[in-house]
Amino acid sequence: MSELRIVAVTGVDEIVDGDDLVTKFLDAVDAAGLGLEHHDVVTVTSKVVSKSEGRVVAFDGTREHRERLIAQESRRILRRRGDLRITETPHGFVNANAGIDHSNAPEGTAVLLPRDPDRSARRFRGEVRRRRGVDVGVVITDTFGRAWRHGVTDVALGCAGVRPIQDLRGTPDDRGRILDVTEVAVVDEIAAAVHLVLAKDAHTPFAVVRGLPAHFFGDGSVAHDVVRPTPGDLFR
Amino acid sequence: MSELRIVAVTGVDEIVDGDDLVTKFLDAVDAAGLGLEHHDVVTVTSKVVSKSEGRVVAFDGTREHRERLIAQESRRILRRRGDLRITETPHGFVNANAGIDHSNAPEGTAVLLPRDPDRSARRFRGEVRRRRGVDVGVVITDTFGRAWRHGVTDVALGCAGVRPIQDLRGTPDDRGRILDVTEVAVVDEIAAAVHLVLAKDAHTPFAVVRGLPAHFFGDGSVAHDVVRPTPGDLFR
Repeated sequence: MSELRIVAVTGVDEIVDGDDLVTKFLDAVDAAGLGLEHHDVVTVTSKVVSKSEGRVVAFDGTREHRERLIAQESRRILRRRGDLRITETPHGFVNANAGIDHSNAPEGTAVLLPRDPDRSARRFRGEVRRRRGVDVGVVITDTFGRAWRHGVTDVALGCAGVRPIQDLRGTPDDRGRILDVTEVAVVDEIAAAVHLVLAKDAHTPFAVVRGLPAHFFGDGSVAHDVVRPTPGDLFR
Repeated sequence: MSELRIVAVTGVDEIVDGDDLVTKFLDAVDAAGLGLEHHDVVTVTSKVVSKSEGRVVAFDGTREHRERLIAQESRRILRRRGDLRITETPHGFVNANAGIDHSNAPEGTAVLLPRDPDRSARRFRGEVRRRRGVDVGVVITDTFGRAWRHGVTDVALGCAGVRPIQDLRGTPDDRGRILDVTEVAVVDEIAAAVHLVLAKDAHTPFAVVRGLPAHFFGDGSVAHDVVRPTPGDLFR
């Protein structure tokens, strides 16, 4: 039987600007006696990445300021309803209100998305390898709404050491023919899976996923492999 | 630390019309020595639900026949490109080609979506409780594309014993204010999580998720709680 373990890494203090995320993570992993193994995937919420990278701005709580921030952090506004804006960010993500978050942010501030989440993931991964000699995958996660279905789910904003899309194209199915459904966004499935264990404790920015198959690991980036370019997208 | 275990239940023979899915599942769980616990969630792929419920039709492989089947299984066609149709099914799901699948189907046939996946889930759950005296949640899963992002992920088509949306509205965040992001589609996150362990073996229709928090369990249905009605949807 294939088995996957997903462990929320608890006991992490609040992250603030300039914090070394990797130190915070490794300290918590050590305190939990969890250890790290080759081909673990470490997930990090985008919020703590943003905080550690100084992507926190003053926010006076007014609608006008909110509108200005959304405009500044968007490439395009796709839909409007009431206070909700469906935005396309400079990364190409489609989300609500440019991903700007003023919950769990220091009073009078708002947290913006990381500028380059794939790069943040690569740095995190490189530091873990340098300090512990272990090759882990890293996925930066955030919570997005979807079209057509109620409720938000976690998706990947960036990754390193993980191939975001598993291309099953050309894999013969069990009758030797070719599968119709070919490209699985495993990086988003990892983010969604981890969100289930983070649900208990909003303070938990890190989790470890253990037991993913070896072929999930390799080079790739969310920006290149998952973001669908506007030309050719049927829903923009 | 919160921890989740996801186990693919392997060793299940091919499912055909009239098969008793619950017997197949319980036999495989017993053979694996996995057992079932209170508040496990059992996932079942929609394909084997369809097969066991006789939702398999003759299919001659021509484009014309394919078009007829898609029209018959759709309430509306939202977008067209080449052979791809983005459809709204009678259930209200938005997916590709009405979810009709001719991979892993018997030669000359196609598999349609279950008519009422929530009902299929309720029956499965009721039978497990009757035979084993264990209260499990059940989620029927399928593989859908998404808007704006490459790659498919698994989502829930039906459920029983699980509250599909965890409403965090009104939950104070760590500073005592109200969270912005309030309703998490945990049923879809469960489907996505399980897809990661099914990826290794296309024959595996069942998985068990162990370790979900108690408040995930209760009444709910995908049709009522997750499907977004057309009026009010920003992307139809």
